[in-house]
This record gives sequence, structure tokens and C-alpha cells, in this order.
Amino acid sequence: MLKFNKVVIVGVGLLGGSFGLALRHRGIANTIIGVGRSIATLRQAAARGAITDLKLDLLEACRQADLVLIGTPVQSIAEFVKRCVTAELSDQCVITDVGSTKGTICRQLDSSLFRRYCGSHPMAGGEKSSVTHANHDLFVGRPAIITPNPHTDASVASIVKELWESLGSEVSVMTPENHDLAVARVSHLPHVVASALASVTDAQFLPVASTGWSDTTRVAAGDVEMWRQIICENREPLLDAVRSYSNAIEQWLSALERSDQTAIARLLTTGKSIRDKLPQ
Amino acid sequence: MLKFNKVVIVGVGLLGGSFGLALRHRGIANTIIGVGRSIATLRQAAARGAITDLKLDLLEACRQADLVLIGTPVQSIAEFVKRCVTAELSDQCVITDVGSTKGTICRQLDSSLFRRYCGSHPMAGGEKSSVTHANHDLFVGRPAIITPNPHTDASVASIVKELWESLGSEVSVMTPENHDLAVARVSHLPHVVASALASVTDAQFLPVASTGWSDTTRVAAGDVEMWRQIICENREPLLDAVRSYSNAIEQWLSALERSDQTAIARLLTTGKSIRDKLPQ
Repeated sequence: MLKFNKVVIVGVGLLGGSFGLALRHRGIANTIIGVGRSIATLRQAAARGAITDLKLDLLEACRQADLVLIGTPVQSIAEFVKRCVTAELSDQCVITDVGSTKGTICRQLDSSLFRRYCGSHPMAGGEKSSVTHANHDLFVGRPAIITPNPHTDASVASIVKELWESLGSEVSVMTPENHDLAVARVSHLPHVVASALASVTDAQFLPVASTGWSDTTRVAAGDVEMWRQIICENREPLLDAVRSYSNAIEQWLSALERSDQTAIARLLTTGKSIRDKLPQ
Repeated sequence: MLKFNKVVIVGVGLLGGSFGLALRHRGIANTIIGVGRSIATLRQAAARGAITDLKLDLLEACRQADLVLIGTPVQSIAEFVKRCVTAELSDQCVITDVGSTKGTICRQLDSSLFRRYCGSHPMAGGEKSSVTHANHDLFVGRPAIITPNPHTDASVASIVKELWESLGSEVSVMTPENHDLAVARVSHLPHVVASALASVTDAQFLPVASTGWSDTTRVAAGDVEMWRQIICENREPLLDAVRSYSNAIEQWLSALERSDQTAIARLLTTGKSIRDKLPQ
């Protein structure tokens, strides 16, 4: 069974905090050190039970660590990977992250850095950020994508895979590029779609909005700065996805303008047939 | 307290069936007769406890009824209202429905028919149709819009309002036209948005789809024929709504093409600010 002596979580928000809780709940780690800029947030994480200790200094925290998870916003992940490898890590130390994009992170790392690093993206979370909403079962039954690089040690990739499986995730292995294409479609495009829908809703109608509107727009409540970074990091695959989606909306406009009942039924059928393929 | 001696439910699907269960659960009706074309479906509804008796003949079922609820697809509702008023109803009988549109129904009824009829639209349901998924708490805490006409008896409108309140709904009163404008925005547009999103998703990516994709597309799994009718009945208000939405998607495309981080943050902020206004 997977077991770590010393784990460091850099950025203890919803995902980092849930990761800490999940490790502790399953007895996978002895010591879990939270690292962050705000002592108040780290104290909150400790009170919540997500970490056993806290540090403001990254290199000090990483001394003899055998697992480092970077849970910061995506645009700072590569920088933290670079800084971590300069620490006195344990020889077996594995570095991973929970970033929603992978291509730009990987392009910032040179091949020597990849020995210890294998990217992870647990497809879990929700519109509520911060450690207050963290829970130890956040990853159970959820997809997690890991993105080893040709330079990643095989043992590192295999530990990262086993790690997410231990926390209950269903793990897929992808290249960073394929990861970014997939999440542009299943995660980032839904965010744009939901945000655009919320933005055109006159607030006077909200008292009669029911589960249809609230589910379709749910993710739009997510943290703006976190999502701005994700969207900017994955701009090109997302732009392609939004273009396809815009064409689908144009087909709807055309069918409605022409009162074309057959086309309307066909559009509904296509959407339903794909939605029905989602495993329950 | 509201109490009916004999209730008729025409079309015992998810909404009609849940209505019957809700009435029985709260002791609001003595007898509940289900009317439909399929004896098998009616027997299923009876076995489920949604109705106490069943009939294939509408006029026979309606004899001395004091409440008739029409739960059929929207394009047949006006026809059923017209037929019901020819039955030997109780003098106090109230006729209502659960249709998702109101304008075209009302345009098919002449003013004399409105004395007994007041439209209802409980904003509840889900992507799963049929009486199998019916439940007695479906309307609890959900909005219900009622649409009395100037010709509707004041007592009829007030009974219909009290009826939905008794089942736990939060009732709004609107004209049929305002109802259709509101639901185009909060219900029919989300359906188009969700269906279009599902339709552009390559099924190979579904194994890594998580709650974001599944919530944003949930309603797209709804019954195609039911939704085709709703969309065609409410074509004009929906077309306006899809045009506004298409403009919002164009703004996203433009912001992504220009890599305009400020515009992206602004779009996310607008969506979030409206989503955050939804009462919890």
C-alpha cells in the first residue's frame, strides 16, 4: 500500500485541502505540511484537519519530503515545480499538481525537471473554492488525468497513478497536449457556456428559475481569477471548442428562424444521444 | 383547507403522476382518476399510487369532477380544455394544466372558456419523464407560475394559486405573454444551450467528463418530442433569447481571439454576478 512519510501541499484551497483530508482519512501520509502565503489560510486548513503542520518557507517545508502537491492557481505551477526541485527533497520524492491545464506548464519546464514531476488533474471541485468546502471524498468516483512526459521517471508516473487511485479516482493517462484538448471540451467550454447563459439572464426572472437554469449555470459561480488563468492558459484549444459550439448555436438560430420542426427535432436528438452516453 | 372530491388527471406522466402523488400524500383529494390513451401507462400510474381509478373516456371521467389537471404535451392542451368544458363537470370545477408555454394555448381558447380555466406551470420535472420517476415532493420549494386571464373567474384563479401553494410551490402570477418571455429565458434557452453543448462533445472525451459537463448538459437528456413541442410553441420569445445568447458567445470568441485577459475577466465577472444572485 502507498504510504508517504512527509507530504507538502503548496496552496491549500479546495483541491489542496481535500487532498490533505483524503490522505489523512486513508492513513496514506504521516506528516502533511501546508505551504502558502497567508498564515490565516494555513491555520484554517490546519483547523480543518487538512494539514498537520504549516510553513511559509517552501524550501524548508520540502526538506526530505517524499511527495509535493502543488495546488496553486495554474499560472504559478511551473514556477513552483522549478523551485521545489532546488530543495533538499527525499531521493524518492514525487512532484505533482492539480492544475486544470498542462501544455503551458510543461513548455516552461526543461527535460531534467521532468524526472520527478508528473502532472495530475483531478476532475473534481466545484464552484465553491477555499478549504472551508474541502472534503475527504472529493475525488471518489471522479476522473483524474495524469500527464507523464517522456522524461518522467516510470516509477514517478506509476506512484502518481496509484496515488489518485488510492483516493478513489478513475485515472486516465494522457499527453499534456491531449489533456488540454479534452478538458477544453469537457470542462472549459462548459464554463464559457454557463457563464454566457448566466450573463444574458435578466435578474428579474430569477425567482422563477428552477433546476434547469441553476444546473446549466452552476459552474459560472466559480472563482473569476482562477478561471481567467485556466482559460488564458488553454486559449487555443478552448477557442476551437467555442468555435464549434458557436456553429451549433447558429444551427439552432437558423432552425428557429425557419420554424423548421424537423431540424429542431434533429438538433434535440443529437444532443440527447451524446448526453445519454455519459455513464451514470 | 383545500379539498377536492373528484380530481381528473389527463396524461399521467412525470408531472401528472407527481401531482397525483402530491395530492394523495397531503390528503387533498378523495378520488383521482387518470385519463390517457394507454391502459398500460394508466395501470402503472395506479400501481405507483398516483391515481385511484382510471378511464380511457375523458367525458365519463370528468363527470362531477371539481378539478381537472391536463398533463399532456403542450400542443394538445388547448384541445383538452375545449373538450373538458363540454363534460358534466361540477359547478365549481377548476381546469388547469402543467404546460411549459401559455401564449399559444390561450390564443386557441375563446373568452367563455376562460371562466373555469387558469393555466399553471410548475417549474419542476427533470430530464426523466414517465410516472416511474414521479414523486410526491416534486413541487416542494419549486417555482410555479399561474397565468389567469381577464376572463378567468377570480375564485378559479385563487383556487389554482392555493392548490400549488398546498403542494409546496412558490407561486408567481403572470400574464400568459410574460410567462412565455420568462420561461424562454430561464427554461427553454438553457435547454438549447445544454443540447448544443452536448452535441459538440466528442464521445471519446466522456470518460474524463465530470460534474461540470454533466450538470451543464443535464437537461439535454430530456424527451425530444416533449421539448420539440415546447420550443415550437414558444418559438418567438426563444428566438430572441437565443439571439442574445449568440451575441454573448460572440463576445467570448472575440475576447479569446484577441487574448484579451481583461475582457475575459469581465465576461466571467458578469456571469458570476448574475449566477450569485440566485437564491440558495
